[in-house]
Amino acid sequence: MPVYQYDGKSFVCIDDFHQYALQTLAKTSLDYYESGAEDELTLKANLESFKNILINPRLLVDISHIDTSSSILGNKVSMPIGFAPTALHRLAHDEGEKATAKAAFDAGIAMCLSSYSTTSIEDVALSTNHQGILFFQLYFNINREITTNLLKRAHASGYKAIALTIDAQVSGFRRKDHKNKFTLPSYMSFANFENQELLQNLSATNSSSSVMHNLLNSADHSITWEDLAWIKEISQLPLIVKGILNAEDAELALKFGADAVWITNHGGRQIDGCRTAIEVLPEVCEALKGSEIEIYVDGGVRKGSDVYKALALGADHVFIGRPVLYGLASGGQQGVSAVINILHDELQRNMQLSGKVSIKNITRTSVMFRK
Amino acid sequence: MPVYQYDGKSFVCIDDFHQYALQTLAKTSLDYYESGAEDELTLKANLESFKNILINPRLLVDISHIDTSSSILGNKVSMPIGFAPTALHRLAHDEGEKATAKAAFDAGIAMCLSSYSTTSIEDVALSTNHQGILFFQLYFNINREITTNLLKRAHASGYKAIALTIDAQVSGFRRKDHKNKFTLPSYMSFANFENQELLQNLSATNSSSSVMHNLLNSADHSITWEDLAWIKEISQLPLIVKGILNAEDAELALKFGADAVWITNHGGRQIDGCRTAIEVLPEVCEALKGSEIEIYVDGGVRKGSDVYKALALGADHVFIGRPVLYGLASGGQQGVSAVINILHDELQRNMQLSGKVSIKNITRTSVMFRK
Amino acid sequence: MPVYQYDGKSFVCIDDFHQYALQTLAKTSLDYYESGAEDELTLKANLESFKNILINPRLLVDISHIDTSSSILGNKVSMPIGFAPTALHRLAHDEGEKATAKAAFDAGIAMCLSSYSTTSIEDVALSTNHQGILFFQLYFNINREITTNLLKRAHASGYKAIALTIDAQVSGFRRKDHKNKFTLPSYMSFANFENQELLQNLSATNSSSSVMHNLLNSADHSITWEDLAWIKEISQLPLIVKGILNAEDAELALKFGADAVWITNHGGRQIDGCRTAIEVLPEVCEALKGSEIEIYVDGGVRKGSDVYKALALGADHVFIGRPVLYGLASGGQQGVSAVINILHDELQRNMQLSGKVSIKNITRTSVMFRK
Amino acid sequence: MPVYQYDGKSFVCIDDFHQYALQTLAKTSLDYYESGAEDELTLKANLESFKNILINPRLLVDISHIDTSSSILGNKVSMPIGFAPTALHRLAHDEGEKATAKAAFDAGIAMCLSSYSTTSIEDVALSTNHQGILFFQLYFNINREITTNLLKRAHASGYKAIALTIDAQVSGFRRKDHKNKFTLPSYMSFANFENQELLQNLSATNSSSSVMHNLLNSADHSITWEDLAWIKEISQLPLIVKGILNAEDAELALKFGADAVWITNHGGRQIDGCRTAIEVLPEVCEALKGSEIEIYVDGGVRKGSDVYKALALGADHVFIGRPVLYGLASGGQQGVSAVINILHDELQRNMQLSGKVSIKNITRTSVMFRK
Repeated sequence: MPVYQYDGKSFVCIDDFHQYALQTLAKTSLDYYESGAEDELTLKANLESFKNILINPRLLVDISHIDTSSSILGNKVSMPIGFAPTALHRLAHDEGEKATAKAAFDAGIAMCLSSYSTTSIEDVALSTNHQGILFFQLYFNINREITTNLLKRAHASGYKAIALTIDAQVSGFRRKDHKNKFTLPSYMSFANFENQELLQNLSATNSSSSVMHNLLNSADHSITWEDLAWIKEISQLPLIVKGILNAEDAELALKFGADAVWITNHGGRQIDGCRTAIEVLPEVCEALKGSEIEIYVDGGVRKGSDVYKALALGADHVFIGRPVLYGLASGGQQGVSAVINILHDELQRNMQLSGKVSIKNITRTSVMFRK
Repeated sequence: MPVYQYDGKSFVCIDDFHQYALQTLAKTSLDYYESGAEDELTLKANLESFKNILINPRLLVDISHIDTSSSILGNKVSMPIGFAPTALHRLAHDEGEKATAKAAFDAGIAMCLSSYSTTSIEDVALSTNHQGILFFQLYFNINREITTNLLKRAHASGYKAIALTIDAQVSGFRRKDHKNKFTLPSYMSFANFENQELLQNLSATNSSSSVMHNLLNSADHSITWEDLAWIKEISQLPLIVKGILNAEDAELALKFGADAVWITNHGGRQIDGCRTAIEVLPEVCEALKGSEIEIYVDGGVRKGSDVYKALALGADHVFIGRPVLYGLASGGQQGVSAVINILHDELQRNMQLSGKVSIKNITRTSVMFRK
Repeated sequence: MPVYQYDGKSFVCIDDFHQYALQTLAKTSLDYYESGAEDELTLKANLESFKNILINPRLLVDISHIDTSSSILGNKVSMPIGFAPTALHRLAHDEGEKATAKAAFDAGIAMCLSSYSTTSIEDVALSTNHQGILFFQLYFNINREITTNLLKRAHASGYKAIALTIDAQVSGFRRKDHKNKFTLPSYMSFANFENQELLQNLSATNSSSSVMHNLLNSADHSITWEDLAWIKEISQLPLIVKGILNAEDAELALKFGADAVWITNHGGRQIDGCRTAIEVLPEVCEALKGSEIEIYVDGGVRKGSDVYKALALGADHVFIGRPVLYGLASGGQQGVSAVINILHDELQRNMQLSGKVSIKNITRTSVMFRK
Repeated sequence: MPVYQYDGKSFVCIDDFHQYALQTLAKTSLDYYESGAEDELTLKANLESFKNILINPRLLVDISHIDTSSSILGNKVSMPIGFAPTALHRLAHDEGEKATAKAAFDAGIAMCLSSYSTTSIEDVALSTNHQGILFFQLYFNINREITTNLLKRAHASGYKAIALTIDAQVSGFRRKDHKNKFTLPSYMSFANFENQELLQNLSATNSSSSVMHNLLNSADHSITWEDLAWIKEISQLPLIVKGILNAEDAELALKFGADAVWITNHGGRQIDGCRTAIEVLPEVCEALKGSEIEIYVDGGVRKGSDVYKALALGADHVFIGRPVLYGLASGGQQGVSAVINILHDELQRNMQLSGKVSIKNITRTSVMFRK
């Protein structure tokens, strides 16, 4: 039964976890998680973009056996839903990324760890006994030694891929964070940058505030498509290019050797007023047709039916961001597991209700757009 | 005069009955009746889908004599509005399905009884002295003996047709019911399954809760279009396929011998985010053009003009679900009769106001879409 | 200065008069005036339909002299705005239709008197010393003697035209009136039917309530286009066909000798869910192109710019209904005059702001539709 | 850091300044600044018109060096954002136009002074030591001596261009101003008309109220395109035609010698229900393609991304009106500077986030319309 009980409440959908997080997390943490850039138009558009897509059921099909399994970059997963990289999980729950990673591992799904995690690359890997399907998200630091260090540590800890973020060379302007003068609480840290002389040198003091400032301002503004090869060479891992928003850049990713493109507007946190992943998806699929490259999306996914719609429009994998944080805020690992269970139940139920017995059965004709 | 007085209130439109039900029924009953699946997008779309369709009157026509009569599967009715199958009428009023059936019979319209009625097939038939135009709605049980038993009883009690539900092999996820842990009150039962050893065997205890759980989980997930013939053979009755949502499945229904297709999204209770019956209707009419098969719709019908619009777009019959329950909650049989009277008055008035003297006069040019 | 002072308040736009009426009139009167049919979708659409039409100014034009004058059926008017027939003016102000007619006369504009006025045909004519540009609106009574009587009296009193209402053979269903059991207060009457034995014979008693009931139910449901000739013959006046909602009926009006077509949905009071006059206007203009017949519209006109838009889309004259009643409720004749002044000022200002010096300058290219 | 502190508050976006102005300015001043004509539909449309335009980023571009500089009529500016003429700055802050002009000068951007300023042409020029990039906005007075005087003074004080307003031969009707009987407070004046015998002769008294009335009613209604040449001859300055709302008038401006067209609906203060500058921009660009004439827009610009979108659609320069007044109300010159800084930061950030290193990089493919 996809009903989760916690703190005297029943949770039956992602919105229940959202409401719980809104009521229990500290305001500055919530603002950090919840904010989109500027007027938050893109943030809202992400949620809206699924509503105009309709599932088109084909019925009286034998649905005795439903299989939601899939794969991502050669790794078998229980369903094509993974965890997008989100920063600072310990703001939501003390166990932070360890809880998240264990929940993903238990469910047999992929998790992409943020560069800005509050648990280190190594500790996250260890939390799943190096058995998790972990990817590492990279902000390309202007100091190549730092970047090299991160890539090599990810490889050494058994991560399965690198996801290079290309849409955040500067931070989107999230107004509340600036008004809050948001910074990391003193009892947590940017775990991947602890004890790194290289980074500390950038900072006059060693406070988390100044480390954060330095990190956010240490992106290499000069990198271009030509640099993808270097990342693959250093990491020896498949490379996902995360931040694609049109066919042209998707084609460049393919040309320069990416193994996957990740269509995203960064949860509405970067450009305010751009397309949603779902809006971009069809043109990217068309552009990459016939290639082996994989296509991922995120942004606004809150229901199993949202996943279904993205798959139908051509996505190979669908990632969730804030729902993971909402789950984490609702009981730690068990909350995250509950989020996964609910999404799985919703995806499976929608497959049953529309006559699809496997992920491959979900195709372009499985959905239509409301006129 | 289409004004109904009850409990010190005046009822002049279906919404008045709705408001009364909202104020007087128990919360768990209301939640069961009112809920749609998940975010209830489809539930809302059903109501919205009529608003963009406009009646196009042709005036200075002699409207001295208006005839709203029609027929369904060879049965003469006073108007092309029938009762869709809805479960558990005794939640709304102690007389339950008997009151509903008698009101339908008095008005000379058709009623389709739900498998999950709180009054048995036989008792409902008896309430109209076997004179009612009754159909029986079937959930195809995985135990063919149970299914056979239901079909034979319907035939024996003089039901005129079987409506096979194809869109509910699993239940849509209605969140409130899960939070409420909704189950049948102990003083009522799934009347069609009482004293059936077959079904009780599925259940560890004999409580209505466990019977309900078993019923909802005993659909045969393996049935396909090929099984229509078996139903017709066992029941010896015309077969309506209920749950059609596109031209392709409508064509299959025709091919496999259905006598009618019923376009519905199950009152927004199954897939959340699919088309409305009204949106689907034109393509189904186009696909079935030239055949003898009848076309029914339901979903969001709250006014005589909604019926008019559905007829104009090609429906042969229009069914109402929740309005019947609202009427039942507003005085039992007399409330249901008042609902019928108001819809009849509205339909007739819109015919007068648009220069149509018979149901057949209402054609595709009688409506247009707002751009 | 288009600012009207009354009862300690400043009125600068029609909405100010509306607000005043809402605050001061009796609820049953307000409900009668304000209501639309059923869900009032058409009522709202009338107001909305102007918002998507945009004025396209052409500037640096010499606007030293602005002329808003026009004509209607050969009668010169100060602007192409007239008073649509609305019933029961004495509900708004004790002077009723006399005040309305005098305000129209003072402004040099046309007024169409309702059959259901609370001042008689003769008294209204007298109030303007038989100098007003008055039309008479006709509900075609099943008793031809009554109809003949009305037409002959209108002719005898110097009315300039007959406007035959074709969209109200039965009343639209306005819910509040039915809940209110609305009827005429005892101290006023249907003045055109006073002392008429013919009508009284229809009624068991002589109360205004029963007269009203009889009137509303005495429309001749059998009249057709063929009857237009009879009306013209009896009245010896130009004939306006009021209630046109598509090109087909406009063409029939032309064919059967109408001098003007009046596109209207009866203020949203008849069919709920039909097109607005503004939506219908272009196709009627296209259908009647090249003929001498005049084209009028009403519905939702609340600003001079609404008039401008209707003229640009092809209307020859624009009528206002409720705004007249709002003015009447705000000081009687002087309130109605203020409504006229404001609309004239707004029309003139919009002509100045868009470079049009005469009504004829306002053409199809003067407006565009927002995409 | 684009965070401005004032009066105990943090300002991070233009809306923060707007909110502060709403809370601190006198009601009549606010109403004068904030009002649009009539129902304020155009006022709202201006803000809405940017929301449907989306930025289309191209990523992994070297963004190490961002250049926001541009030029206007041969004058180099730090960014293509200027101050639109708005009247009566001293209503917002005692320093009035001096503060505004100094902030523009400090930022290296252009400012267009209103004819109806509360600081004179000469004093504004002096406030920037005659180094500012100042334009003068002209209402063409019916008394040519007054007009000549203004043009010669602008030239003598080093203004760089004349912007002839063509859309305000009469005032749009702003309802609140009429209800407020808005007039200038006695301790400020229409500084460009002080001590002018010519204008005082028009007025029975010398009160600011009567001067204002006279000014607003002294536009020359007879001027046409032919008069542009005279303005250029008298002023010996480049001429901007301000108030263009379609391709036809843009082409006439070009034909009659304008150096720039300014697409605007006057902040929604003139015609209520016309297109927005952003809606008109593409057709004007198409019409003027290949000419040297410059194209400006204003209306609803509240974010750097709005500027970006206007540039992408073909504008050479983007002007802001109310945001300047909101800044002025929030601390005078420093508030205006903060508004500039925030818009510059937003523009630059959106260029970085979308891979554009110079204004010229922002082209038609940099944006798309949401379907």
